[in-house]
Amino acid sequence: MATLLSQIKSPAELKGLSKNQLPQLAEELREQIVSTVATNGGHLGSSLGVVELTIALHRIFDSPKDQIIWDVGHQAYAHKLLTGRQTEFGTLRQFNGISGFPKRSESEHDAFGVGHSSTSISAALGMAAAADILKEDNKVVAVIGDGSLTAGMAFEGLNQAGHLKQKLVVILNDNEMSISPNVGALSSFLSRKMTSDTFIRFKKETEHLLSYVPGIGRDLVNLARRAEESLKSFMTPGMLFEGFGFDYFGPLDGHNIDELIETLHNVAQIKGPVLLHVLTKKGKGYLPAEQNPPKFHGVGPFDAETGIVKGGKPGSAASYTSVFSETLVGLAEEDERIVAITAAMTEGTGLKKFSEVLPERFYDVGIAEQHAVTFAAGLACRGMHPVVAIYSTFMQRAYDQVIHDVCLQNLPVTFALDRGGLVGADGPTHHGVFDLSFLRHIPNMVFAVPRNEIELQRIMKTASQFEGPFAYRYPRGSGLGLPLLETIEPFDIGKGELLRDGNDGLIIALGTMVDEALIAAEQLNKQGLSIAVMDARFVKPLDDELILSLAERVPFVITAEENSLQGGFGSALLELFADNGVSVSLKRVGIPDQFVGQGTQAELREQLGLSAEGLIAVVMQTQSFQGQKASAG
Amino acid sequence: MATLLSQIKSPAELKGLSKNQLPQLAEELREQIVSTVATNGGHLGSSLGVVELTIALHRIFDSPKDQIIWDVGHQAYAHKLLTGRQTEFGTLRQFNGISGFPKRSESEHDAFGVGHSSTSISAALGMAAAADILKEDNKVVAVIGDGSLTAGMAFEGLNQAGHLKQKLVVILNDNEMSISPNVGALSSFLSRKMTSDTFIRFKKETEHLLSYVPGIGRDLVNLARRAEESLKSFMTPGMLFEGFGFDYFGPLDGHNIDELIETLHNVAQIKGPVLLHVLTKKGKGYLPAEQNPPKFHGVGPFDAETGIVKGGKPGSAASYTSVFSETLVGLAEEDERIVAITAAMTEGTGLKKFSEVLPERFYDVGIAEQHAVTFAAGLACRGMHPVVAIYSTFMQRAYDQVIHDVCLQNLPVTFALDRGGLVGADGPTHHGVFDLSFLRHIPNMVFAVPRNEIELQRIMKTASQFEGPFAYRYPRGSGLGLPLLETIEPFDIGKGELLRDGNDGLIIALGTMVDEALIAAEQLNKQGLSIAVMDARFVKPLDDELILSLAERVPFVITAEENSLQGGFGSALLELFADNGVSVSLKRVGIPDQFVGQGTQAELREQLGLSAEGLIAVVMQTQSFQGQKASAG
Repeated sequence: MATLLSQIKSPAELKGLSKNQLPQLAEELREQIVSTVATNGGHLGSSLGVVELTIALHRIFDSPKDQIIWDVGHQAYAHKLLTGRQTEFGTLRQFNGISGFPKRSESEHDAFGVGHSSTSISAALGMAAAADILKEDNKVVAVIGDGSLTAGMAFEGLNQAGHLKQKLVVILNDNEMSISPNVGALSSFLSRKMTSDTFIRFKKETEHLLSYVPGIGRDLVNLARRAEESLKSFMTPGMLFEGFGFDYFGPLDGHNIDELIETLHNVAQIKGPVLLHVLTKKGKGYLPAEQNPPKFHGVGPFDAETGIVKGGKPGSAASYTSVFSETLVGLAEEDERIVAITAAMTEGTGLKKFSEVLPERFYDVGIAEQHAVTFAAGLACRGMHPVVAIYSTFMQRAYDQVIHDVCLQNLPVTFALDRGGLVGADGPTHHGVFDLSFLRHIPNMVFAVPRNEIELQRIMKTASQFEGPFAYRYPRGSGLGLPLLETIEPFDIGKGELLRDGNDGLIIALGTMVDEALIAAEQLNKQGLSIAVMDARFVKPLDDELILSLAERVPFVITAEENSLQGGFGSALLELFADNGVSVSLKRVGIPDQFVGQGTQAELREQLGLSAEGLIAVVMQTQSFQGQKASAG
Repeated sequence: MATLLSQIKSPAELKGLSKNQLPQLAEELREQIVSTVATNGGHLGSSLGVVELTIALHRIFDSPKDQIIWDVGHQAYAHKLLTGRQTEFGTLRQFNGISGFPKRSESEHDAFGVGHSSTSISAALGMAAAADILKEDNKVVAVIGDGSLTAGMAFEGLNQAGHLKQKLVVILNDNEMSISPNVGALSSFLSRKMTSDTFIRFKKETEHLLSYVPGIGRDLVNLARRAEESLKSFMTPGMLFEGFGFDYFGPLDGHNIDELIETLHNVAQIKGPVLLHVLTKKGKGYLPAEQNPPKFHGVGPFDAETGIVKGGKPGSAASYTSVFSETLVGLAEEDERIVAITAAMTEGTGLKKFSEVLPERFYDVGIAEQHAVTFAAGLACRGMHPVVAIYSTFMQRAYDQVIHDVCLQNLPVTFALDRGGLVGADGPTHHGVFDLSFLRHIPNMVFAVPRNEIELQRIMKTASQFEGPFAYRYPRGSGLGLPLLETIEPFDIGKGELLRDGNDGLIIALGTMVDEALIAAEQLNKQGLSIAVMDARFVKPLDDELILSLAERVPFVITAEENSLQGGFGSALLELFADNGVSVSLKRVGIPDQFVGQGTQAELREQLGLSAEGLIAVVMQTQSFQGQKASAG
């Protein structure tokens, strides 16, 4: 029997269903989402939470004439299924498949490409402003989670929206949970449990103030009066938004389709910024996800029946994240200055254990990378040695703070960049392929990249003893399976390592590319070519001495990195050679000047030649080019 | 007669004065500040506004044991004068003199180095957290203006502060004005005029809602009730901060020293985050500054008696900012898609005229660079062609948004980066010397740098016709005095220009360095050296064809740029040559891997060899090196 879902080729067909059919449609959407994510992996909980909301939105608004903007976008699977992408949905997050996030080039219904958090209000306001200038009557809707609201950027958008008074619907998808449970004072604004808590808090605080500040006089009376008044306002979670000039509606049950449709219908008529507060449950309708939201936020393939995640092979290598996790706890137990900071990614960055073992030195600042870095700078000013653990791609958010607050003041803040390089299925919004370029040019920064999990441990130790800014980046996924160190020796700052000698050429590699270079050299040896392999280890400062002495002896150098070729590690070597008048031929292997798509890490690396085979091809090419030059010369 | 001020060598002496003497001290501070800024230029209005607050802070708190953190820091002149820097104060903002901003390396009383906006709450919270971990009893105070509060980062800090409940005093210095008058819904939170306005607004909105949304039923009743309640809460500007978990006090008269001291004394005892709301007047005590706050925010030398700013020479060249200003209005009058966006810098970026002539296409988003860029992306999605005008140094705040929201989606957003290169007296926090490095490596970006004001006009025209991301940067200060174009012809994307031919060497220069290169070549010609000069014009894409053909003919190439040598323009040429197997000797002139201090632009350029003389020296050096190689070879 044909499902209802299979009849929905576009939002137009959705509008043709009777209201009674919508719960069934919701169920079919959930089944489709669970079965696809069980196979492909993906963001499950968020998408399941907004199934009814998505149906209601496409029922009331008229996409693509109206624009629906999904913040972060990991909740947009139902949206994809309702806007003409059922056939391709099985390719979700796969190489050449459809994206796990809204993407303008994929569908006219994806009004704005997303992946990073908290951009939706700004983008929606821009679209609303354009409608105003062009005198068009389209409507613009931003759907943003309560977690995304902790980022300053969302606040900047709210602030201007309330000021401009343009027609704009912001839907606050409140599941009391971003990726991990929410932190920050903001969440208490939205809390359904606020009334009684707040009452108690205010009473207590008022008494407290009365006892402590006897000198204020008239102000104290005002204070008491204000506390009373505020108390009343605190009963409405909407006060924040009303204060910003939004009309506030809600909170609504986000799983009651009828109520959602009726309210959206009314809200859509209002001329000005409206905030609709909707309460949803992450993972709704799929018990394993309802019961363990963090696990099913972003999940690998799992058994749909049981919710059991299909693990790696038994005995497989530990992930870099877990090595970071274990090692940092060990270092912090030895050094009381070490403090760990995450921006709403306690589990993702592996800081869960730290938060349990050393809670007094652990800070989750919410989705607030800018604040995380400057907060760390403040800690460092007072003698602490903070480690800011942020995925490489999200560190882009704090570029200015790294320059202005940490490096300019030369403070001992360590940046632990997980997911450096290609991340795989999350695709172009999430690859960490610019960090070598954007951190290398900042004065005072030291930047190291481990080639395996033991090197990560030793680099972490090195950073913990360094009295200045220090960044290290490590890849998504597993290490090489080496047994971890019990006693960790630090490295000398700026010292690389010659791993294999040779005279016919030299590969200077970094991180994941070191192992590939060794494999390539071994292969090439069988073909009679003796290729030296050096692990640069430090992007900054470079091991000038070793590199220059090696470069003198070889006919060509190849650099290999999982980073943009513009301004990255290879460019650093070009700069070094130019500054020292070394004219050795240098060929760079890395990521060309384009955004990289999605796929497994292996697929993407193969596509870009970031592999032993890729390096062998470049060596052969360079070798033959050098040969031609020699015979021509 | 010795002044009171001259007796204050440190905050300890301040504490020894009688209360009656403090108004006189305030007056002396104002005189010193006005006379120094009249000579040196600087940030006048903000510093005059907080004289009493500064006295009160140093009276109550015990710096450096307690930390006082000045947001942005352009209000810290009185702080400098009260903390042991009276002798050096005459060197304010001069080469090797004291900084116009708090600077950790300058004084133990400067708890945190600043320059960019909205970092103070984050840094202060970090310091408070450190005190908590270390069980120290120091107090931490952040002083932040109402303008700085519009940046999302400040909100991120507030959000965590309310959550952590650490002992922290935030002083909101509310002058209803950031650099230009404040925008955004937030400012209405703080407005003293709120009561009556809000009442009217709420009555109107309630009626409006009643007429438009008849279907909501019970929600409507709730809404009306809530509106009533909110109304009461709106009478207290502190509700926002109380909502975030701060104790709120104020608003206080920020020019009443006694009241400030008494309140600060009480506030300092509270165990938890406190916000003290202080009302001040920008420029207080100096009539010209009180009457024209934007003019005296940051001001050049002026006559202290009259307040008349000492103008440039009559007939001197127009500033790049004014050329940008005029040209953009002209382009926008021809092209209805052009929209202008500033982040609280309407005057500084030269968009004042645009805002007057085309107000419906002008947006001041507040100090919110991240939002500015994504707002522009939203506008571009709907067919507009936004021009985001942000100083180069502040664009660092929106690096991620440029990548993720504009370039990844290949949207036609133009970035007009004023103050590219060395800015002079504002020093290391404000130099725009990383933009070539941090924007060049982003895929899809086009980046051009004009060598004079006419080129700026033509590049602006080129950008306005380009359907993708386009950045251009131009320096602080005047152009070459060329008559502006009436009819503006665009350039071909990625085309540079050979300005002078020669066979003994080639200088490829960019922006301000092109004119220096021409002067150098002319000088060298007299010494018998024929040096070619090319204006690269585009950093990206490079004019590969012209550059490679020229490089083949010369013994060496010198690149010249006012940007970091790490990953900048010179590195782009190294990449080009390496990728094309060109082994020409290349020497790069630019900014080395260190933060650059303050001074006039001329002083700093001379120091770094960014001048015709510097280029001549490099040519002679390279020439002699080449000669040695030739005779050795």
